[in-house]
Amino acid sequence: MRKTLTALFLTLIFLTCTLHGKAQNDSLIIRQIFDEVLTKGRAYSNLSDLCLNIGHRLSGSEGAAKSVKWGYDVLKKSGADTVYLMEVEVPVWNRGTVERVAVQMGTKGSGQGKRELHACSLGGSVGTGGKIKAEIIEVQGIAELKKLSEAALKGKIVFFNRPMDSRKISTFEAYGGCVDQRYAGAGEASRMGAVGVIVRSMSLAIDEHPHTGGMAYPDSVQRIPAMAISTTDAEWLHQFGANKTVQIEMESDCEFKGYAKSSNVIGELWGYESPQDIMVVGGHLDSWDKGQGAHDDGAGVNQSIEVLRLFKTLGIKPKRTLRVILFMNEENGNMGGKTYAQKVADKKETHVLAVESDRGGFTPRGFAVEGTQNEIDFIAGFRELLEPYGLHYFEKGYAGVDIGPLQRGDKAPLPNLLMLGLVPDSQRYFDYHHADTDTIDKVNPRELHLGAGAMAAMIYLLDRYSK
Amino acid sequence: MRKTLTALFLTLIFLTCTLHGKAQNDSLIIRQIFDEVLTKGRAYSNLSDLCLNIGHRLSGSEGAAKSVKWGYDVLKKSGADTVYLMEVEVPVWNRGTVERVAVQMGTKGSGQGKRELHACSLGGSVGTGGKIKAEIIEVQGIAELKKLSEAALKGKIVFFNRPMDSRKISTFEAYGGCVDQRYAGAGEASRMGAVGVIVRSMSLAIDEHPHTGGMAYPDSVQRIPAMAISTTDAEWLHQFGANKTVQIEMESDCEFKGYAKSSNVIGELWGYESPQDIMVVGGHLDSWDKGQGAHDDGAGVNQSIEVLRLFKTLGIKPKRTLRVILFMNEENGNMGGKTYAQKVADKKETHVLAVESDRGGFTPRGFAVEGTQNEIDFIAGFRELLEPYGLHYFEKGYAGVDIGPLQRGDKAPLPNLLMLGLVPDSQRYFDYHHADTDTIDKVNPRELHLGAGAMAAMIYLLDRYSK
Repeated sequence: MRKTLTALFLTLIFLTCTLHGKAQNDSLIIRQIFDEVLTKGRAYSNLSDLCLNIGHRLSGSEGAAKSVKWGYDVLKKSGADTVYLMEVEVPVWNRGTVERVAVQMGTKGSGQGKRELHACSLGGSVGTGGKIKAEIIEVQGIAELKKLSEAALKGKIVFFNRPMDSRKISTFEAYGGCVDQRYAGAGEASRMGAVGVIVRSMSLAIDEHPHTGGMAYPDSVQRIPAMAISTTDAEWLHQFGANKTVQIEMESDCEFKGYAKSSNVIGELWGYESPQDIMVVGGHLDSWDKGQGAHDDGAGVNQSIEVLRLFKTLGIKPKRTLRVILFMNEENGNMGGKTYAQKVADKKETHVLAVESDRGGFTPRGFAVEGTQNEIDFIAGFRELLEPYGLHYFEKGYAGVDIGPLQRGDKAPLPNLLMLGLVPDSQRYFDYHHADTDTIDKVNPRELHLGAGAMAAMIYLLDRYSK
Repeated sequence: MRKTLTALFLTLIFLTCTLHGKAQNDSLIIRQIFDEVLTKGRAYSNLSDLCLNIGHRLSGSEGAAKSVKWGYDVLKKSGADTVYLMEVEVPVWNRGTVERVAVQMGTKGSGQGKRELHACSLGGSVGTGGKIKAEIIEVQGIAELKKLSEAALKGKIVFFNRPMDSRKISTFEAYGGCVDQRYAGAGEASRMGAVGVIVRSMSLAIDEHPHTGGMAYPDSVQRIPAMAISTTDAEWLHQFGANKTVQIEMESDCEFKGYAKSSNVIGELWGYESPQDIMVVGGHLDSWDKGQGAHDDGAGVNQSIEVLRLFKTLGIKPKRTLRVILFMNEENGNMGGKTYAQKVADKKETHVLAVESDRGGFTPRGFAVEGTQNEIDFIAGFRELLEPYGLHYFEKGYAGVDIGPLQRGDKAPLPNLLMLGLVPDSQRYFDYHHADTDTIDKVNPRELHLGAGAMAAMIYLLDRYSK
């Protein structure tokens, strides 16, 4: 929106006078969008197909390759003017076949057995190379770890056990305040001489499902294995380990397997007025290798495709080109997002808008906007049109990982790009996130479809009211 | 609020000037309420106990009797100043042991078998007295039924098949536009000579679970049996019956068993300033005899109890008396609500506020207010304090069945009573409503607790800012 968004805000005064006149027509079109998606929406049946016939799809896996073909076909069927693949080089990590964390229940030689915990390797971790047996040291996070001496940590396994803060109303805020343990805990522990880490699953649910997720090592440290344990096991281990020495055994044969070729899948509905101006809507096609990647992010992918289908089916012709992107590799590298942004810069394409859905397929509440207060106010000006559909939240916030590399600002290739993230109700998201439980039965068709309708309505309005 | 609510609105101008000063303290107290309920909330564990150890509890059943004792004990433990029972005479209806709807798959004598549908008797229906076999006539509702001739309906079974309108954003609106078929369909069909009715389940989910629910007969008609069939079966039967005559068989031994004594359960936290002024908060303790009555309305009952516990635990002393009422018999008679309202009138008690939760334990969005525009505006004035907790909806609307008989208005005993209904997200509610699937695993602890927090915060604000 170099040329467009600047003009967009100049039209604000004009709009204030005319919005009431136009609003009637807009409200009819928005009503059509929601009527269509709530009665004949395809996002849920397409998501069911992805979840049940392909399942999880970690970058470089067979599932990921199948999902690329699936995405290509579904975009074609949904009425895209063109569908194409964009090559993306992705890292390949493989979980292997062994992932165990066991607690020694008595002192050595006492003959007591081991208690197996519900555990899984963290994505990106190295394997254990056989069994690792060591004493654990529980900490409530990296800050507490750093207060310990290297002598105390030498040869130990660090147990990161700070829970997500249940007082946060947005569970994403709770996650953000906690996930450093998973992402960076192993690196920090290794720096101080530890031989492995186990991390309490990032979940507000107290249950037996371990949650995987990305982690990475700084270049400078020895790579030590990192695994997640379920929240019930973390609570139990905390109690069991109080005032005594606890030995655990870790075993994992996960490994990094190098790089492979994969793809972003892209479908377009060409603009009738300025097709060279691009409006992106997307989610990520890859998922962790647990469950079916239903909410994360099969939901966002299928909502994005549905936006295109809604425009096409209802005959809503966008002025600018609507580009649906099913990004590859959000979970462990974001190479899809990075590659796409690089291509945009290389081609000097004009992007005016990017909307991402990657917070689950729950009832939509509104949008997080990466923009100035003026821009947020402008978007919040649509409130009256959108509130009948339960959309009330229009606040400054992070739009999404996949579109993140498109950056806005003076130094970026796209200085005035407007970026939005769909914000659904967040209460249940982390119950399923990256776990075996992220399956299609956790998705409600109406909630998913309301989200697709919300994105379609917002894109329709922004396309119409920017010049 | 004879004296109080009138004054309440006179204070509006005063409040506009001072609310900003007070808001800081209020926001701290509201934060305490949500911190407590999100970290140490008891509503979910109490609800689990009710669901798993008692289960469903239709009026007059053993479950209902147990739930009265349960409610008494939980209110005691939650810190009520007093707990007592209020006798309520309730109708007793029993499902019996047989409930079948089967479709004859071929013409008579062709030797083809029957297809059994997923069916259940509607609450209040008479049994079939053996098997009823008759041809079905499908209609899309009572209006269509009335256009048919009595000759066409004589001896037939009417199949009411109008689905809930999925275009409605509020599923309660969709339910309201459809439930006449279930409630009054049998009476209307009987009036025209039909011998039975089957009704498409009131649900937006397309699945195999039949949903029961209340129905009643006008005095003047022959009582004919009424059953619900699942939405999948309704869709199938519609297709199967297109352009051909279909015979079905109904069988049910449900029956009305007269009347029994039961109770509302009431707990109070006495007001320190005007204890004679009552603020009611409640839900209904009875449930249909399907599932566990988790969302309907174990959720509301336990949220109401939690409001009292929150006030007690946090040392929030109400000016007026907070009266928690676990109403009996909302589902098939509302005798708890009616009896309570009669006692209030008899005793000439002053009620200033009544808040009900009976729309499921999902993420709260706000409140429906039975009141004047001035009153709604006053309540919406708390928006700034409540929006951080996801509460954004403050609109005119129906407050609830249990508190309904308390009526407001010139001719009622309580002319200025303010009545509010908690409004949670409605998308999933009718998937489970009155069906085997309304079980504790469908309730998310955080969503339930946020609803309790919302009620506590609203009651705190209204108690504080009315004079």
